[in-house]
Amino acid sequence: MSAAVNPQRTIAELKELRALTGDENGAQRVAFTLTWAKARAWLREKLNSIPAEVHNDAAGNTWATLRGESERALLIGGHMDSVPNGGWLDGCLNVLAGVEILRRISAQYSGKLPITVRLVDWADEEGARFGKSLFGSSACSGNLDMDEARGLVDRNGARLVDALREHGIDFERVKDSGCELANAAAYLELHIEQGPVLLDLDLPLGAVLGTFGVERHAIHFHGQAAHSGSTPMNRRRDAFLAAAKMSPEIYRIAERSGGGVCTIGSCTTQPGIVTSVVEDCRITLDQRHLDKKALWRMLGEAGDACERFAREGNVEVTWERLWHIAPRPFDDQLINLCDEAIAETCGRSHRLPSGPLHDAAEVARAGVPTVMMFVQSLHGISHNKIEDTKEEHLALAVTAFDKLATKALRWIAGN
Amino acid sequence: MSAAVNPQRTIAELKELRALTGDENGAQRVAFTLTWAKARAWLREKLNSIPAEVHNDAAGNTWATLRGESERALLIGGHMDSVPNGGWLDGCLNVLAGVEILRRISAQYSGKLPITVRLVDWADEEGARFGKSLFGSSACSGNLDMDEARGLVDRNGARLVDALREHGIDFERVKDSGCELANAAAYLELHIEQGPVLLDLDLPLGAVLGTFGVERHAIHFHGQAAHSGSTPMNRRRDAFLAAAKMSPEIYRIAERSGGGVCTIGSCTTQPGIVTSVVEDCRITLDQRHLDKKALWRMLGEAGDACERFAREGNVEVTWERLWHIAPRPFDDQLINLCDEAIAETCGRSHRLPSGPLHDAAEVARAGVPTVMMFVQSLHGISHNKIEDTKEEHLALAVTAFDKLATKALRWIAGN
Repeated sequence: MSAAVNPQRTIAELKELRALTGDENGAQRVAFTLTWAKARAWLREKLNSIPAEVHNDAAGNTWATLRGESERALLIGGHMDSVPNGGWLDGCLNVLAGVEILRRISAQYSGKLPITVRLVDWADEEGARFGKSLFGSSACSGNLDMDEARGLVDRNGARLVDALREHGIDFERVKDSGCELANAAAYLELHIEQGPVLLDLDLPLGAVLGTFGVERHAIHFHGQAAHSGSTPMNRRRDAFLAAAKMSPEIYRIAERSGGGVCTIGSCTTQPGIVTSVVEDCRITLDQRHLDKKALWRMLGEAGDACERFAREGNVEVTWERLWHIAPRPFDDQLINLCDEAIAETCGRSHRLPSGPLHDAAEVARAGVPTVMMFVQSLHGISHNKIEDTKEEHLALAVTAFDKLATKALRWIAGN
Repeated sequence: MSAAVNPQRTIAELKELRALTGDENGAQRVAFTLTWAKARAWLREKLNSIPAEVHNDAAGNTWATLRGESERALLIGGHMDSVPNGGWLDGCLNVLAGVEILRRISAQYSGKLPITVRLVDWADEEGARFGKSLFGSSACSGNLDMDEARGLVDRNGARLVDALREHGIDFERVKDSGCELANAAAYLELHIEQGPVLLDLDLPLGAVLGTFGVERHAIHFHGQAAHSGSTPMNRRRDAFLAAAKMSPEIYRIAERSGGGVCTIGSCTTQPGIVTSVVEDCRITLDQRHLDKKALWRMLGEAGDACERFAREGNVEVTWERLWHIAPRPFDDQLINLCDEAIAETCGRSHRLPSGPLHDAAEVARAGVPTVMMFVQSLHGISHNKIEDTKEEHLALAVTAFDKLATKALRWIAGN
């Protein structure tokens, strides 16, 4: 084996996996299905050609370990599972780049590795079948909500608990997987960007600052239905007017926030007929920021604006929290190393937050210093068969990610 | 018979009709049903006590005629039919005030009436069963769309054509009713206001300037779905943002228009999920004005604003016309007479447009000088069992409407 990564091999393996587990609609590696099991069996074959110890943990995550002189471990992670009709890179690029790095390290050190290096394929990052993402990583980090997960069923009524058993996993023991993180000193994850930031900047790679915290609410405005012909404008209590004013407002709130995003994804109106002023209007508001205080501030500003618009229009407003999660900032030193690796590979780097969640957020939550590297997405679109990245960018990604692994290994060994 | 109207008798008759044809949910005199037929039979009895000739025309409109020395005729109109669960005054106040005026005139002139005076009960003003309002008056004015009407069915699949036959009406001959307008010199209609204008002004009565023209459109904004977490604000093509900006804009457009109203009654979003920027947004826009040019200007301004907001947000916009009708301004001299009658009765009058359509719009469209008088609605609400007017205001309405009839009679005789 050569002591350098071969990015073309990674690209070839990605294509091999696509042929094995995709169809004309995209990737079909939904976790806890036969196609996913087939993908993982294929991964095992790849890992068996490396002198690594391979096992599944109590949550079904697959670990490949190159033991070093110290038990302190550098972790590299990804996920083989996909959404239905998914992209060919989301999740598996990370795993296969990791395989290539394990090959390089095992060839380079031939048994005299100073620290331990491990690759993990997380079980069910997407949550596509049971509606709960980050299953394997949140079990491992200790944050899986057992009561909620115990009740999960798929659209055919099959229970998660039974699907796990079919794949050799005892649901009640999944948190035993937490022991895998005992000696973790750093966690690295490569991923295709699921947005257009690097595309717009014409950059192949970026260093990820962390995953956004999310505040997700439904906002109800309640006014008064009234005849569209006979009700003077100044007599109206128009629920849509108050809700509509929020749309340009959230753009201003996001701009002031320094890097946050806000989205009104849904608007419904009642009675919703052409001849009546809107009595009830419900919008959903999704707000994300990397900084906890900035996220709170965005939420507070949205609340103030709603109150103001409701008062102006003589309507009532109520909020319902749908979901929230705290921001997961990544490790400053690892972000610096990631930046360096990118700059050395392709001249210029860029730092950006991750809007979507990743397994890395769970690992960071467990206290392991973490960083992610993003590679440009051609259309800024993922979870879709059109997801794609230029092959030259995939090659740069494997090269830069390998450099990052080297830097992280030295960083751990030197600490 | 006394030669003065007795408003208390009109109020008593309205209550009698309510007891006969209403229930705990409101008025149930839906046209071309048994309850409507019962209401009209009751009306015939009232008319039979007056020396008037009574007949139904080819469209099923009931006419009561006091022949005068001239064939030139003063018409007074209303409608006995209601929506399901309707109010106790909408339509029948007009008819029963007219009955009282016929009583007064026949007593006063005892055969020496200078011109002809006629009361008409229009068939199916509301269009509640077959979805097409102003049936009898539009047949009479010659504007009924025969091809459209021929195809109308109710929610049980019964055809309008068959319902008409059951009530003795030959659909193909309904426009023969147009001969009834041959000698019409003026048309008067009293109606409960279906909005809050007189209530807000604390006035019992108002003179109506005409019925609004209406432009009704669906506006589609088409942007791009994108992940709410990974898509920077400045990269978004947010269809909801462009649509939402229209809501405050239509208030500005209405304000500039001098008396018009604009309503966005419905908003729908696709994909309409909390984690995606809105790709498609459809709103309905209803615009009304008494002045044709002002209505066009409002429509043009809405179109310009949509284009501007679409351009700002890099989305596309398309329009679909749902319906339109021209404004029907009433007769200036009759409006003046109506104002005088109101001022003489209760000191102060007010001129206002009618947002909803009325049979009067069809009569005006046929070229007959027309005016309406509105009486205050207690909640500004109609088409509902809570529709109501203070009895003192009902009494003022009958008195003022009778004064208007006297003025119009003199006006016709003097022309």
